[in-house]
Parts: sequence; structure tokens; C-alpha cells
Amino acid sequence: MPEDTHKTERALLHAIEARSRGIRLDGAELIAGPGDDCAVVQIGNESLLITVDQLVEGRHAEPGTPIDPIARKAVARSISDIAAMGGEPIWATATGLLPEGYPHADALFDAMKRWAEHWNAPLIGGDIAAGPGPLALTVTVVGRMPSNAPPVLRSGATPGQSIYTSGPIGGSLASGRHLTFEPRLDAGRAARELGATAMIDLSDGLGIDADRLARASGVRLLIEAESVPMHPDAGPWRHAFADGEDYELLVCAPERPSGFSGPIGRVESGPPGAVILDEHGNEHAAERLGWDHADRSR
Amino acid sequence: MPEDTHKTERALLHAIEARSRGIRLDGAELIAGPGDDCAVVQIGNESLLITVDQLVEGRHAEPGTPIDPIARKAVARSISDIAAMGGEPIWATATGLLPEGYPHADALFDAMKRWAEHWNAPLIGGDIAAGPGPLALTVTVVGRMPSNAPPVLRSGATPGQSIYTSGPIGGSLASGRHLTFEPRLDAGRAARELGATAMIDLSDGLGIDADRLARASGVRLLIEAESVPMHPDAGPWRHAFADGEDYELLVCAPERPSGFSGPIGRVESGPPGAVILDEHGNEHAAERLGWDHADRSR
Repeated sequence: MPEDTHKTERALLHAIEARSRGIRLDGAELIAGPGDDCAVVQIGNESLLITVDQLVEGRHAEPGTPIDPIARKAVARSISDIAAMGGEPIWATATGLLPEGYPHADALFDAMKRWAEHWNAPLIGGDIAAGPGPLALTVTVVGRMPSNAPPVLRSGATPGQSIYTSGPIGGSLASGRHLTFEPRLDAGRAARELGATAMIDLSDGLGIDADRLARASGVRLLIEAESVPMHPDAGPWRHAFADGEDYELLVCAPERPSGFSGPIGRVESGPPGAVILDEHGNEHAAERLGWDHADRSR
Repeated sequence: MPEDTHKTERALLHAIEARSRGIRLDGAELIAGPGDDCAVVQIGNESLLITVDQLVEGRHAEPGTPIDPIARKAVARSISDIAAMGGEPIWATATGLLPEGYPHADALFDAMKRWAEHWNAPLIGGDIAAGPGPLALTVTVVGRMPSNAPPVLRSGATPGQSIYTSGPIGGSLASGRHLTFEPRLDAGRAARELGATAMIDLSDGLGIDADRLARASGVRLLIEAESVPMHPDAGPWRHAFADGEDYELLVCAPERPSGFSGPIGRVESGPPGAVILDEHGNEHAAERLGWDHADRSR
């Protein structure tokens, strides 16, 4: 995999997002478009959440990874996006692009069905194609905001709030946790109920994701490296904050919601972006950690 | 591509559909699950239609097909499923699995965005990954039934109805029409408004798709080969009815809806299945034509 693959994917997604501003739907209202964890559509009395992710063998899971954890991760990534809005899953659809002669198709879809139901998002449709190349799964999950509550976007952080995380960070890929993480539906719900105004799930690393939330909100996020809970196997914070695939939630709220640790920092007014404060009192641009991560190319 | 690829895909989809009966959703009702053109979910006052399709280069489009027709087909296939329910598109999401170093990503997503808007289903989210293997696009379209009208399922045909098609059949792949077809949104809407009770879009060929509708409805469909409109380049009916990728609508209705030709046959009580009546008065199981098609492996 060339080193710039991850950068290219990001740049393309960003270009697509930029082109998608001002979308108007017929008979529905787009509350949040591309660029948040989920798109949000208001239709009738319902706020629906829509998210889609791909899992490509060799890219998001090592070749030879057993069926069940592959199916689990393919579903869990999208469920995590629903959690990051404070929402509840309703249904899922899945497609599989299977290598020619793939012998595990039935077991794979059985496992996807089981995991989708486990997180309350039954599979209601899908498509299968066979072709050359690696196994690729696409899972779309649609969720809703209970009682039509407003979704917790990335853009709602305000100065004076504190920052919390739903669990420890770092070492997800090396440890295999990227295959076994639990999407934080309960924590996301608790954060919403407590009045959290900004949330994101940590897929690309605490550094780049905190920076994304900060810029979406037009605020400065100051995160104290020593306050961030880390896995024992995670290594130094510079690596841990860039590892990615933690799938913990980062939230900005007036106080600590149930299921979260911290505070790990605070929201300030200032130039938009996230800053890491190290043990010597030095500040580091969080955004750079994300790109370091990309440069190491998994 | 091995000869049995298409059969394998069908068999897998069927196994998945069979496992998906009796699905219950939280806060929504599943009106139609896997196995129809779209899944149908009743949520609040809305009947939503959900469909997803993949386009794999080398499988659904020749390698080297220009960007614009690839993007068009990827979107149009899912729009056609919305048309087959008598519904209206609301939004789309798209994912791309791009070959490493793929130089046309931006133009491709630009074209997908344009075509999605053309059919009134703006792209509100997506994902991009790079990997080995061919270009693969997944497009999900969500639509709705206007005024909460009941969707036109495959299962509603009743004896005494006539059968109509929205356009000529055959030769779609050889002629390139599979890249340029127009999803029959207007015809689908007209059929619904006229009280059509069963409809399907012809993706796998008139033979196998008519048979599918017949079995879903528990009726016998008798189609007169000589009454079916065909493209001048389509060859004999045995081939034309098996070519597939026509993306015309087949409908069962009390009378001819606007935008349809026929009648091309009638709905009868009898053993479930579709039968083709040839020019000599002989009957042929329509189902076989579908499998002949698969055997020729495109």
C-alpha cells in the first residue's frame, strides 16, 4: 500500500464534502450533510441518521482474519457513527464484493446478520457480487434520534466546556482491538441526555479527530496529554493519539456524562484547532499527529 | 469470470433473503424485507424505500468504460429499483473502492453527484477506500411513497390482470444500452396511480424476472412472445428474454398505465411461475431463460 493512500482517501472525501454544501432534498430536510459522523435527515417527525463505511481485506483487516471478527468490524464501524450522534440504530444494509470462488460467503453474511441484530440494526437488504480483488464489505446503518432530540454534531462545542473520552486510547491495530471494540451506544446516549453539544468517534486518532471537531465548531480544544486514559500497551502519547481506530467517543459537555473519563481538556475560544499540552507545558498541533499516522501507512 | 458466478450470486442472495424473514425493527415497521426491488420501512407517517446495488468494473461495465457512463449506471440501477415500487427518490449515498493510484476519482464522484441530483436523489454521504482490484461502486438510494401510498410489491399480482412493459426488451449489453437506460420513474408512478398491484424492474431478463414476480404473487404469468416489444438489434426472443439489464418495468394491472406497452400477457391462477407462449402455441418455462442467461456468463 503506497504511503499516501490514506492521505488521498482523506483529500478525496474532503473534496466531495466541500461540493455537497447546500443540498436540498424533496420532501425532507438535510440537517447535516457529508462531513459529520452521520448525515442527518429530518423527514416527517423523524430525525434519521445515515452512515456508510467500507471494510476492505488487506486495508482494514489483515488478510486471513477470521470471518466473525471481519463481519463484526464491518458492522461495528457504522454503529459507532450512530453512537457519535447520540442516536439509536434502526436498520442496516450490506453489500459484499467477494473474491471469485470465495468459500465463506454464507458464514460471512450469517455473521453480519447476527452482529447487525446484536446492535439493534437488522439487515433489511443487500447485494452480492463476485470479482477479482480482495473481500470488500459496505455497511450502511440508518438510525434515529429518540424523541426527535437534536443530534450531537461535531460543530456544537462552545468555550467553557470540558472534554471527555469514553475509554482508553492507543494501540488498537497492534493489539487487535480494532476488531473487537464495542461501539459506545450507551455512552453516546448518556452524553446526549446530559446536554453534550459536540461529539465524534475516534476513527483516525485522537489528534486528527479532535482537530476536526475543533474546526467544525470554530473553537480551540486544549487536551492535556497526561489526562488522557491510554491502554497499557499503547506506547507514548505521540503514537497513541495517532494510532486511530479507537472507536471511543470524544465529547464536549458541561460536565462528565456517565460512561466517560476525564476531563482530559477544555474548550476555549481562539484559533480553531486542537492542541495537545505535553508534560513539559509545550503545545503541539493535534492535526499533525493525524498526518503522522497517515504517513506510517497501515 | 467463471460461468457459475452469476448463479452463485443469486443463490447467495436467495439464502440471505430466506434468513431474513420475520425481521422486527425498533420504532419502525418493516413492510417488505429482502427479496423485493426495495426494502420498505414504515416510520412515522412515511413509507421509505431502501435499495443498494454494486457496480464492479469488469463485471457490470467493461474495463475502460468512460467515467460518466460508469457513474450514471451505478446510480441508475438503484433509481430503477425505486421506480419499480412506484416511489420517488429522496437521497443517495455512495462508496467507492478505487484501484491504487486511480486518477479519475474526482471526476467519477463529480459525475455520480450530478447523476444522483439528476434523478432527484442528492448524495448526502459516502466513503472512499483504495485497494487492489477493480473499481467498485456501491450506491444506496432511499425513496418514499408519495402521500404514503402503498408500495407496488412483486407479490400483488391477481388473476385476471394484464401484463405490460415500459419499453422494448433485449440486446442491452451488446448495444451498450445497459449504460444509458433511463430509469422508469414516470412509468412507475403512472402504474401506481392507476392501481397496479405488482411490479418489478427487468435486471436479470424478462424470463427470470417475470418468474420471480409470479412466484412472489403465487400466480401464473402467461406471456405471449410475439406481443413483447423488442429492440431491432435484440435477436430471437429466447435470447432477448434472457439478456437482462433492460431496466424496463414489468407490471400487472387492470388496464394499461401511461408509459407502458401491451398487454403482453395475462395473470392466471395456476401453479406459480411464468410461462412464455411461443408463435406455435408451445409453452416454455420462463425461469429457464434466466438460467440460460446466467450460463452464458457475461
